[in-house]
Amino acid sequence: MTKFKKILVTGFDKSALDKDSWTRIDKLTDSITFIPSEEVDCLFSRFNKVDKKLINSLPNLKYIGLLATGVGTVDLEFAKKKNIVVCNIPGYATESVAEWVFGLILEHLHDLERAKQVARHGDFSGSGFSTTEILGKKFGVIGLGRIGKRVAEIASGFGAKVCYWSRNRKTEMEKKGMRYKELQDLVSSCDFISLHLVYNKNTEEILGEKLINSLKKGVAVINVAPMELVNITALEKRLKKNDITFILDHPDEMNPKDVQKLSHYKNCIIYPPIGYVSKEARALKQNIFVSNLENYLKGKPTNQVN
Amino acid sequence: MTKFKKILVTGFDKSALDKDSWTRIDKLTDSITFIPSEEVDCLFSRFNKVDKKLINSLPNLKYIGLLATGVGTVDLEFAKKKNIVVCNIPGYATESVAEWVFGLILEHLHDLERAKQVARHGDFSGSGFSTTEILGKKFGVIGLGRIGKRVAEIASGFGAKVCYWSRNRKTEMEKKGMRYKELQDLVSSCDFISLHLVYNKNTEEILGEKLINSLKKGVAVINVAPMELVNITALEKRLKKNDITFILDHPDEMNPKDVQKLSHYKNCIIYPPIGYVSKEARALKQNIFVSNLENYLKGKPTNQVN
Repeated sequence: MTKFKKILVTGFDKSALDKDSWTRIDKLTDSITFIPSEEVDCLFSRFNKVDKKLINSLPNLKYIGLLATGVGTVDLEFAKKKNIVVCNIPGYATESVAEWVFGLILEHLHDLERAKQVARHGDFSGSGFSTTEILGKKFGVIGLGRIGKRVAEIASGFGAKVCYWSRNRKTEMEKKGMRYKELQDLVSSCDFISLHLVYNKNTEEILGEKLINSLKKGVAVINVAPMELVNITALEKRLKKNDITFILDHPDEMNPKDVQKLSHYKNCIIYPPIGYVSKEARALKQNIFVSNLENYLKGKPTNQVN
Repeated sequence: MTKFKKILVTGFDKSALDKDSWTRIDKLTDSITFIPSEEVDCLFSRFNKVDKKLINSLPNLKYIGLLATGVGTVDLEFAKKKNIVVCNIPGYATESVAEWVFGLILEHLHDLERAKQVARHGDFSGSGFSTTEILGKKFGVIGLGRIGKRVAEIASGFGAKVCYWSRNRKTEMEKKGMRYKELQDLVSSCDFISLHLVYNKNTEEILGEKLINSLKKGVAVINVAPMELVNITALEKRLKKNDITFILDHPDEMNPKDVQKLSHYKNCIIYPPIGYVSKEARALKQNIFVSNLENYLKGKPTNQVN
């Protein structure tokens, strides 16, 4: 196979990819469509569901290209049974998200929004501002995948004492001076905690009532991972005590009532999900997406997930 | 000498020091006053002028303790002639200011003020947000004193390619991979530039018209040092082209008309001077201030500047 017959694009429109990427894709297919048809042998998808029904409706489907890291939207087993190759884009936004985490931390520590506002109004007194340094503080990273590792490295650059919890010990990080801690110990001792776990049934509400109650007074917890990792009721109770700060950036995937509840607390800082939007991440994502396609056609699929 | 007779406090009030510091000071003197008198043998000062007139009005003065780093407010030579020891507090806010610099950079890169605001209004679309990563970018540090060095180290933690210009080469930093560049070369090649020079007649308007015109398109220049280092007219002209970003935090020391002028440009971001306000810096500053006093009384003055 050297070329696709017809690519069906679902879940995103032309603007999701730059012109250069579409030019590369054009060379790999006879046609591109946004309307399902029997001829379709390649499917593009992002966050939309690719279930048995959709797969069955495309009898000639050979390849599913995901313009995303997450694969939970695709019935991978069923695709495999049908000999359909599914490829995703792992880790394209690692650096973008890791730097974002430090933006969120420093914005909070230095009260930057208020600082900009008072300066805009001509108040240069600096009155009422006081910050805490990252240097020398205990910085806990929960989940040491790609992003968790980069967050740990940057925290080391700031001179923090970095520790981590992860399902598996990471000796290469321990050699760099990062200490492994049990979750309970990490949670109760750290001044900063950043969550970097994938959401699945093992990690659901991993930050449960007991751990949330154990959080050290004054801690800043940053969660740029899904909020399903956190027990919202316990979090709300703890926020009410006004002795921790919680920063999150996935309100879009939460129950709107929960967002509403948390947004009442000044010590809960909510951002839109824009950690992954760096220009570099966007370019890398598209390159991996198109390369996956090219490599499949060359008979050597990359980033195959099924 | 084991104790002062009378300490005269000028330029700040009781609230500038914590209770513990005053308790330590109480043990070092018979009395503390805010009103000048002949008996005064020790003078506390911050940013206020200590000139010949003031020194002459205190015939028994032996020691001037500065609750600040800068010594430009004191007539050091005249104090020396009178055998008065002057001590300051160097470097207490190094980490505070270095971390502040990265707060300012990341706030700008990730558009955090706007991000918080749209989220507050329930807009989680992330539409219109795009950032640039620090990783792999050229990061230039002008002036490699205490703060400049820490900024360079943290930038390295982010994976930037760090270069520097300084009056003297710093081989220990070059061993860590930081490259020395001539000012012109640094200014025209870097994506981020952070200024960390002391203001004196050699550094006045060091960022002059030629260098400002050479700045790379898209650069973010951060100046948490005095704005006297920068030619304001040339800066304003360049800001008008809207192809650089300039971030500053010393509007309080500027001509109000200049602040007014610069504040018209969206690509000039102005903060109050709050880089040094960390709790750790405040504690360290007071400790050095009181220790200077104790050490002088023990006959071994520390941080003497004259």
